[in-house]
Amino acid sequence: MRILVTNDDGIDSQGIKKLADALKEIGDVTVIAPRTEQSAVGHAITMKIPLRVTEYYINGDFFGYAVEGTPADCVKIGIRNILKTPPDVVVSGINHGSNTAINIIYSGTVSAAREAAIMDIPAIAISVTSHMPKHFEYACQTAKKLTQILSQKELKKGSLLNVNVPNLPSSEIKGLLVTTQGKSKWDDIYEERHDPYGKSYYWLTGTLTKDDNEIGTDQFAIMHNYASVSPIHFDLTDYDTFEKLKSWNIEDEKIIQQS
Amino acid sequence: MRILVTNDDGIDSQGIKKLADALKEIGDVTVIAPRTEQSAVGHAITMKIPLRVTEYYINGDFFGYAVEGTPADCVKIGIRNILKTPPDVVVSGINHGSNTAINIIYSGTVSAAREAAIMDIPAIAISVTSHMPKHFEYACQTAKKLTQILSQKELKKGSLLNVNVPNLPSSEIKGLLVTTQGKSKWDDIYEERHDPYGKSYYWLTGTLTKDDNEIGTDQFAIMHNYASVSPIHFDLTDYDTFEKLKSWNIEDEKIIQQS
Repeated sequence: MRILVTNDDGIDSQGIKKLADALKEIGDVTVIAPRTEQSAVGHAITMKIPLRVTEYYINGDFFGYAVEGTPADCVKIGIRNILKTPPDVVVSGINHGSNTAINIIYSGTVSAAREAAIMDIPAIAISVTSHMPKHFEYACQTAKKLTQILSQKELKKGSLLNVNVPNLPSSEIKGLLVTTQGKSKWDDIYEERHDPYGKSYYWLTGTLTKDDNEIGTDQFAIMHNYASVSPIHFDLTDYDTFEKLKSWNIEDEKIIQQS
Repeated sequence: MRILVTNDDGIDSQGIKKLADALKEIGDVTVIAPRTEQSAVGHAITMKIPLRVTEYYINGDFFGYAVEGTPADCVKIGIRNILKTPPDVVVSGINHGSNTAINIIYSGTVSAAREAAIMDIPAIAISVTSHMPKHFEYACQTAKKLTQILSQKELKKGSLLNVNVPNLPSSEIKGLLVTTQGKSKWDDIYEERHDPYGKSYYWLTGTLTKDDNEIGTDQFAIMHNYASVSPIHFDLTDYDTFEKLKSWNIEDEKIIQQS
């Protein structure tokens, strides 16, 4: 099994090393990851400046390819130019910090896996829900388990698995739940400060709202010491609203002629 | 009616000036847009460096606020710190270039509107489908029409309207259709070049696949000289796959105890 491993925290992060080492037990791993941290870049891709790719070594041993770009860039150029033939599975992570609820929208980790899904490759995004994670064991085990499942069973094309794992020893994690994306969002606050020249600048801070109080969402699962796996896709159409819009009579078409 | 106007091409682009001027006919417009072009940044937000906001003038007249950040940053800081109270509608555009099918994923224009939808504010993203647009009239008319509709009718919270308009005179546009997100994707090619020092670098190029051959998608509409309006949301859960995953028995939970 050929596995492409990437992330958004950068190729020198602890999480990607743990993930690559775990997946090497079950397949042929190629690491292709951003040279620098790319958190919260969402699904950005690099189009206006050229990309560079360099080899990255740990203790003198080749570890992987460092891309001066975003997580989505890594998957695109990794598959098109570095691997040349698509891998069996793409795994993105292990992210330092949760990618539940609204965070999925901003996440570079998830966007890397989504780019793989766009390319019809089975993909997993995996995160430990702390910015200073200490416990990678359960996440590594889950990454291996789901990678093996995806190499055997067929996930719908265009879908990916988004996994979140509490930052706890395996013994304290209650299990893995299949979940939906939660509803919790950020109450953003921009803290205004002044530079030494008297000019304003703003830092983004905030807290996640507590809108997931029922069984079934990723955010509820991790709040209750469960790991979660949510199937995510990139069909953004809101089909309910589609029907509603039709009823608003905002269309003004002539008869469409299929050509 | 209070309208926040933003974009991803930058505050000095032609499209945002056309849009702001058109919307000033129907409401009180505040422009808050990126200082520099931010195409293909997706839903990136700025967290690790502070944001700066400056006033931007055209011919000595105040035009709006320039944010040294992404389109999503503009909406967040615009609503939290500049406007202080939410606007009635957020309109993002007029983008130079199409945001149909898979392009929605990469689009800064759509992400700005999506950030508004996350904040429960009705939002529109609007694009003319050429990187060198000449015809903004139909887009301006449509922006005005839909902004007025959104101030009167209730769109489902969390949904936004993504509008694409062919780069044609109004007389040659066949009408406006309610559509879904198309299936067309990019066949990416990374062109390898060498710098004067002999090192490789890569430029992303490619063509959009032609996977939208039926009436009903945004991409099909614009290929046939219709304008399109697609309702988009940020619930990324793939509910079909959710049921399938449940059947795979990958869960290993103990009985969940709601606390």
